[in-house]
Amino acid sequence: MTSAVFRKGRRTALRAIAAATLWLLAAPGTPSWALDALVKKETFVLPSYTTVGGAPLRDVKVGWEAYGTLNADKSNAILITHFFSGSSHAAGKYKESDTAPGYWDAIIGPGKPLDTDKYYIISSDTLVNLNANDPNVVTTGPASISPDTGKSYGPSFPIVTIRDFVNVQKALLDSLGITRLHAVMGPSMGALQAYEWATGYPEVVQRVVPVIGAGEADGWLVAWLDAWGSPIRLDPNFNGGNYYGGTPPKQGLAQALKIVTLSANAYPWANTTFGRKWAEPGKDPALALDNRYAIEAKLDEIAAARANLADANHFLYLVKANQIFAAGGDVGLKRIKAPVLIISSDEDILFHPGAIQRTADEIRKGGARVEQVKIGGGRGHLNGIANIQEASEAISRFLAQ
Amino acid sequence: MTSAVFRKGRRTALRAIAAATLWLLAAPGTPSWALDALVKKETFVLPSYTTVGGAPLRDVKVGWEAYGTLNADKSNAILITHFFSGSSHAAGKYKESDTAPGYWDAIIGPGKPLDTDKYYIISSDTLVNLNANDPNVVTTGPASISPDTGKSYGPSFPIVTIRDFVNVQKALLDSLGITRLHAVMGPSMGALQAYEWATGYPEVVQRVVPVIGAGEADGWLVAWLDAWGSPIRLDPNFNGGNYYGGTPPKQGLAQALKIVTLSANAYPWANTTFGRKWAEPGKDPALALDNRYAIEAKLDEIAAARANLADANHFLYLVKANQIFAAGGDVGLKRIKAPVLIISSDEDILFHPGAIQRTADEIRKGGARVEQVKIGGGRGHLNGIANIQEASEAISRFLAQ
Repeated sequence: MTSAVFRKGRRTALRAIAAATLWLLAAPGTPSWALDALVKKETFVLPSYTTVGGAPLRDVKVGWEAYGTLNADKSNAILITHFFSGSSHAAGKYKESDTAPGYWDAIIGPGKPLDTDKYYIISSDTLVNLNANDPNVVTTGPASISPDTGKSYGPSFPIVTIRDFVNVQKALLDSLGITRLHAVMGPSMGALQAYEWATGYPEVVQRVVPVIGAGEADGWLVAWLDAWGSPIRLDPNFNGGNYYGGTPPKQGLAQALKIVTLSANAYPWANTTFGRKWAEPGKDPALALDNRYAIEAKLDEIAAARANLADANHFLYLVKANQIFAAGGDVGLKRIKAPVLIISSDEDILFHPGAIQRTADEIRKGGARVEQVKIGGGRGHLNGIANIQEASEAISRFLAQ
Repeated sequence: MTSAVFRKGRRTALRAIAAATLWLLAAPGTPSWALDALVKKETFVLPSYTTVGGAPLRDVKVGWEAYGTLNADKSNAILITHFFSGSSHAAGKYKESDTAPGYWDAIIGPGKPLDTDKYYIISSDTLVNLNANDPNVVTTGPASISPDTGKSYGPSFPIVTIRDFVNVQKALLDSLGITRLHAVMGPSMGALQAYEWATGYPEVVQRVVPVIGAGEADGWLVAWLDAWGSPIRLDPNFNGGNYYGGTPPKQGLAQALKIVTLSANAYPWANTTFGRKWAEPGKDPALALDNRYAIEAKLDEIAAARANLADANHFLYLVKANQIFAAGGDVGLKRIKAPVLIISSDEDILFHPGAIQRTADEIRKGGARVEQVKIGGGRGHLNGIANIQEASEAISRFLAQ
């Protein structure tokens, strides 16, 4: 495969993923405001970093982007932390021709709840970001080239934790001279990072807005994360994570991503968008094992497009990071001092109402103030991304307090 | 492998599956009453049968068992139809040494809601029953030997529908001279059969008790069924379903069964039974990719035991039969004349409250009487099996009307 063909394939994949993201996230009622300027992706380099587990890493890179202007005393920064399959791209477009803006564009921009006329919104890629092959993502993980060996780390990459994600973000903020955060806010795995920030760096964080996420991974979530990763391990190309330079386990990765999409959704979405519609006219699913319903075909199509930009080892390292997450370790959530606005959805199968309530109760035991807002939208867990604008007023009020 | 070793392996697998079933279904408060006599598994042979899709089959066999005594005018029969991964074994034990009784033993027996002193409870295996390698299951499907070729059908076996399951049960009842059913009752896929009975043979069915099941597979369920089957197709041993005489895709089948178990459950079960407990003392999941939590290890252990008795093609044929299910076809549920007692759980992710309500509304539009009972138990969909005794009073009353 020539480099030109590869680039073309990647452009096609990028267009497909942008379209898929648009399709997955499009929600009626999304405001039409937009950021004035195009967004620029930056790269932060940390020459050396030692993980929570004690592993030394050199040349750690993560991408980041920002919307709005940092004020003179650097007191107006809000950090956005991303979800499992997301990236730093929370708002705006990189190019005018981008099919879709960042995932929380509905609430980030001039006059929006995360008002770029007031706040400096900064958003960073995590370590082991899922989309390691997306040219708009900068991350360090198993797919990265180790400066020691000149080859991809593969499964020799150390286990990293949500606290490691946060520590690297802390170094990024330090490099910009930002010592206090007006708020930390993120959905799903982004909420885990927000909790870790609030427990790990209470002196930095003035407000916390965890969206569709809890203060620890409970047994239920641990099991789901394991089930998500299952198809990857079954793919014969996975080879224990040693596939760099060979054929990556794209089919397993795609099926894993399909299960993620499905378990992060809810039945109203499935039934209003697809119902029992066939994938192809004239191909009745009752007549052949390979004839399918539209929802099956569409989920596979999206998953395949996403798998082209993702990395299977990164997926499994994210699974591990999420499974072992318990914010603040043993002392836990009681360590939080900043006020917390918890946004959740009772339709959420993954971060279910029981886990959200337990988290709120634990934080209150430590004395911090907790507000709770529930949103709907028929998208289950994904309401926190696709329907976040339902919480706009609560977010605006909380950030202004 | 010698035959003796195989038998020993199978005995071990059977013990493991019995223990696993007991563990999965054990619920506090299960009554200690039991059937007086041991249960005998029978075989029904249908020399020829043509599927709804028009495919002729010869020598169709399904297993069945019964509890209680058929009265002189054969008017006291209640048919029990089983769930996706179940069999005819709804109550009692085959041998004194069996670790667990049938799945609905809590409500079947002398003095229980399905009172064997009053009713003749008959329960049959379906076509393409999942547990094709369980010596206590008799079924015809892709794993069966075709009388035409002397080899397993494999993927050349015709697609079968829930209506085919019901038609074979009808032939079984005809062979026993049973022309009317006091009731048809079953959980999950058993509820689909109950609905199909009520729409397909309204003159036979006097009462319908669908438990944790709806009148059609909606888009949401179609997608879940597809996701369940995904690991099987990824297993390199699957080979498009042509694995008889070779190595069956046991790993893929086990992972499929794990996803079934998880999506049929609910978070209270996961968190009270396991929480964040480690699989092995001293092996902190944070320290190695292979160190796991107890819930991950236990789900894999159970799934592996179940995969030893199950068949991957049968799994996928059941997926198809469930996906294409819409009771009564176009006219649908309005065709039902018999009174219906719908037992469901609001914790159910698969047959969610929206699908149950839609089913009840459709039946009422046709003029039939519908009663609805909701049960809890913290087991999600599986409440309909593990916690069915919560509906005991409603079942007794409904059957006596």
